[in-house]
Amino acid sequence: MELIHTVAELRSYLKSVPNNVLVPTMGNVHEGHLRLVEEASPRGACTVVSIFVNRLQFGPKDEFDRYPRTLQEDCEKLQSIGCDVVFAPDEAELYPEPQTYTVQPSGIEDILEGAVRPGHFRGVATVVLKLFNMVQPRAAVFGKKDYQQCLVLQTMARQLALPVEIILAETVRAADGLALSSRNQYLTPTERAEAPRLARVLLEVADAVRTGTHAYTTLEAEATTELERHGWRPDYITVRRRTDLQMPHLDDSELVILGAARLGTPRLLDNLEITI
Amino acid sequence: MELIHTVAELRSYLKSVPNNVLVPTMGNVHEGHLRLVEEASPRGACTVVSIFVNRLQFGPKDEFDRYPRTLQEDCEKLQSIGCDVVFAPDEAELYPEPQTYTVQPSGIEDILEGAVRPGHFRGVATVVLKLFNMVQPRAAVFGKKDYQQCLVLQTMARQLALPVEIILAETVRAADGLALSSRNQYLTPTERAEAPRLARVLLEVADAVRTGTHAYTTLEAEATTELERHGWRPDYITVRRRTDLQMPHLDDSELVILGAARLGTPRLLDNLEITI
Repeated sequence: MELIHTVAELRSYLKSVPNNVLVPTMGNVHEGHLRLVEEASPRGACTVVSIFVNRLQFGPKDEFDRYPRTLQEDCEKLQSIGCDVVFAPDEAELYPEPQTYTVQPSGIEDILEGAVRPGHFRGVATVVLKLFNMVQPRAAVFGKKDYQQCLVLQTMARQLALPVEIILAETVRAADGLALSSRNQYLTPTERAEAPRLARVLLEVADAVRTGTHAYTTLEAEATTELERHGWRPDYITVRRRTDLQMPHLDDSELVILGAARLGTPRLLDNLEITI
Repeated sequence: MELIHTVAELRSYLKSVPNNVLVPTMGNVHEGHLRLVEEASPRGACTVVSIFVNRLQFGPKDEFDRYPRTLQEDCEKLQSIGCDVVFAPDEAELYPEPQTYTVQPSGIEDILEGAVRPGHFRGVATVVLKLFNMVQPRAAVFGKKDYQQCLVLQTMARQLALPVEIILAETVRAADGLALSSRNQYLTPTERAEAPRLARVLLEVADAVRTGTHAYTTLEAEATTELERHGWRPDYITVRRRTDLQMPHLDDSELVILGAARLGTPRLLDNLEITI
């Protein structure tokens, strides 16, 4: 496996392979990331994992500086799973000058995660576009746990005519249902035991929706209350249509239930796609 | 020469060439465009000229609908100069859905041409990025007559890490000094005789700056008055530094003098680079 830090080295290396598939990450690699690599490997001649903690997608309170950097352990895990190249640029390589030109994902950047984290999706879209331009992959793999991010990147690829296939991989879960996330390591043992409730609550909402209820607002309020009773501070539990994450119309059948809530310090995200 | 209308056909055709160089245009081809093609040809295995009148860069008063469309004549001229591919997508091909994701060129989009035409450079940056993603050229050629546009696209290429070399070609002028432009055809014979004054005024400012005067505001006001006396309606005549088109500092030596003014109906642009 190659560990590459600069765009010049990366482009030089990639000249010798017919094509590649990219898995963009912020590092702190866990089983969820490894499954993204497994999705990527059969789809190209070379699997590239980028590791870059992107300041542009963090808000002032988002603790960019405290985000875990574990490059050596990440590389060991990625090598064991068959990754070919780790591209780990530093900040001066990714942002050699102030990033005044950005991709603005209007229409979706102000709702849900975008409402809680202003500017977040602009930062995500911009860094992913830059990584695409640096790596020039034929495809890129993202995890559905960050559902709104997936939609932003799919829409960006389509609207900007990017020559990159966007592949979305299913969320990887612990045995008790908790979606894997770098943030889980900040849960205390008690919180870790409580954490699977988020996924269970989404399942309960899904079951109710599947039985035909359209009283989404009531379902969302009940789910929120249930989490609050168990010590969570929910930002939203909401039923949306998949195409644009707006409120479903009566004839929408492709839905997703999205949840975000703090449990102690960490803020956990999860979602569940359903078809009615 | 191939005339191609869809992205699918274009990508299929370009698979058979090792690389290409793109000249993005809005058609209505004149000698200035042909010189861009001459710049492009030796730089790649295949020269692609795109012809697309981009609604996104027109303001509500900018008369998008009346912009001249002369595809057949354009193709004849381009074929005669050795162009290999004309890519002429229609609007549904370039914008199959509302373009909600855009490139925002902050810092420069609100000054000079951007002040006169709000949203113009966002539209230019977005369409050029899309054309780059469709054509995947190794280089692209733009004319310096649209100086601010050149700076926007150079900065976009650098800040978004585009794998495209941006080549800027010198402005082509008529024998009397008038910069070639599609807009010149709207000048009456009397206006056409008057039109070279814009270039002459820029030269006068340049001469004064070269002799060491730093009273740019006075020079700009005098130049504006001279144009007004001859029936022009100037938007700006201004001395700027080249890097970001801001007011020059005393130690800036790479300058450009930019002018925009209406003469009758058409609005003419010109500029002159100087080093002091």
